[in-house]
Amino acid sequence: MTSQTNPVLLDGKTLAAKIRGELKDRSIKLQKEKGKRPVLATILVGADPASATYVKMKGKACESCEMDSKKVELPDTTTTEQLLAVIDELNADDTIDGILLQHPVPSQIDERLCFDRILPEKDVDGVTTVGFGRISFGLPAYASCTPAGIMRLLAEYNIPLQGKRAVVVGRSAILGRPLAALLLEANATVTVCHSRTTNLPDVVREGDLVFACVGKPNFIKGDWLKEGVVLVDAGYNEGNVGDADYESCYPKSSFITPVPGGVGPMTIAMLLSHTVAEAERKVSAR
Amino acid sequence: MTSQTNPVLLDGKTLAAKIRGELKDRSIKLQKEKGKRPVLATILVGADPASATYVKMKGKACESCEMDSKKVELPDTTTTEQLLAVIDELNADDTIDGILLQHPVPSQIDERLCFDRILPEKDVDGVTTVGFGRISFGLPAYASCTPAGIMRLLAEYNIPLQGKRAVVVGRSAILGRPLAALLLEANATVTVCHSRTTNLPDVVREGDLVFACVGKPNFIKGDWLKEGVVLVDAGYNEGNVGDADYESCYPKSSFITPVPGGVGPMTIAMLLSHTVAEAERKVSAR
Repeated sequence: MTSQTNPVLLDGKTLAAKIRGELKDRSIKLQKEKGKRPVLATILVGADPASATYVKMKGKACESCEMDSKKVELPDTTTTEQLLAVIDELNADDTIDGILLQHPVPSQIDERLCFDRILPEKDVDGVTTVGFGRISFGLPAYASCTPAGIMRLLAEYNIPLQGKRAVVVGRSAILGRPLAALLLEANATVTVCHSRTTNLPDVVREGDLVFACVGKPNFIKGDWLKEGVVLVDAGYNEGNVGDADYESCYPKSSFITPVPGGVGPMTIAMLLSHTVAEAERKVSAR
Repeated sequence: MTSQTNPVLLDGKTLAAKIRGELKDRSIKLQKEKGKRPVLATILVGADPASATYVKMKGKACESCEMDSKKVELPDTTTTEQLLAVIDELNADDTIDGILLQHPVPSQIDERLCFDRILPEKDVDGVTTVGFGRISFGLPAYASCTPAGIMRLLAEYNIPLQGKRAVVVGRSAILGRPLAALLLEANATVTVCHSRTTNLPDVVREGDLVFACVGKPNFIKGDWLKEGVVLVDAGYNEGNVGDADYESCYPKSSFITPVPGGVGPMTIAMLLSHTVAEAERKVSAR
């Protein structure tokens, strides 16, 4: 099949806005009917400007959906024990629905230990080991937000996954691996590639769907792609550049995510969505 | 490459015997020097004869390695709560190093909940969700025993994995999925196939290594295989028949596991190995 027409853009910006509108309605309803306003706690350790920007963005996103955010800011010198104590406090605080620990934390902190201290039900960012295991086994849990957003975006465009070849390039704990698990749950035949993969272009060419999750600008080239591929670019590099070389990939694709405005906006939408879902779950479990 | 010579047999029987000999020595040493004898607790629920046989076999294997087994047998009518209470007791018992809950349990029991009640450090059978997550993230944990045994067998024969195409056929929680995670950690390029995979023979043909984990006798055929493939058959069906059609697969392989005597003996060896390792860890942590 040749793509003589232009590919369909997987418009995450519009979808995320729609989702956020629905979340705002649910949040207002929850507050009206049950007196509960969803609250996301964000933890920022240190003064990394990019991290500070991300946390601020997430806080504003909460506001825009009639949710609260509780910002915890800790100094660069925070120890693992101190961070664990903060997480314990937020775990125990019944007003808090979700906890987001902004990655990365300063190097003296055992980040994995701290992530895994977050209660599974408050792990709305999908970073815990047990949450990953539950997602992998098809059990209820909040999936890592970017993979969750990608799945939601594919579903919105009714892109079939069952029996399709899905090639995931990248294997990080918050992106490539959980995405592979979700695609497998959706009955795709999943291949995970990475820096040690040999003949990467040939492997990528097997994909009916290709997921660029490497964190290297313009890494995936158009001539690595099967004609008519569904190309999802989860990369976001300096200068609004994705992990796929958009110009050469565009003509080979039947569906493609723009960067920006594809996967990016979906990540925060999923974070908010998980937080509202947890607030609703908590209220209904009372 | 054509296989003009016969393939090398991946002799799990001999390797497992060697490992068990080493475990026996370690177990005796631990007892002599630290007064600690490794103990595996086995839980059998109901009267399934196959399960009873497996549990008995595991108990005898413990004895042969100078380890103890503590057998817990529960009636067919056991509830989830009763089984959880038994697991809690074994978790709290400092003399118990590992806990094996024999699968399957009667249908009224929430098996996943019970598996996940086992303390991670006592999960020597590698069945917990958190253990799976830790293995997937490259963190210390006891991997599911059959995948762990397969990795050990490949290592024994110095079979390279990095950059190789590994095709796992099957995606169960105790075999296909954790095996895929271990192969990915070993830097293979991993594809997971399953019942919904289309053109399965073509996908299997991509594998430098193929892992048959489907539980269907003689399912994988020789003409699905690349010449010179490493074929690992984790199947064990009635009549000592594996998941791969041995006769047609043999001439295509450079390495192949016999059935029986390939993967099978490695599973129990890994269970014992994890139990001894946990006993040693516990003693050294005192």
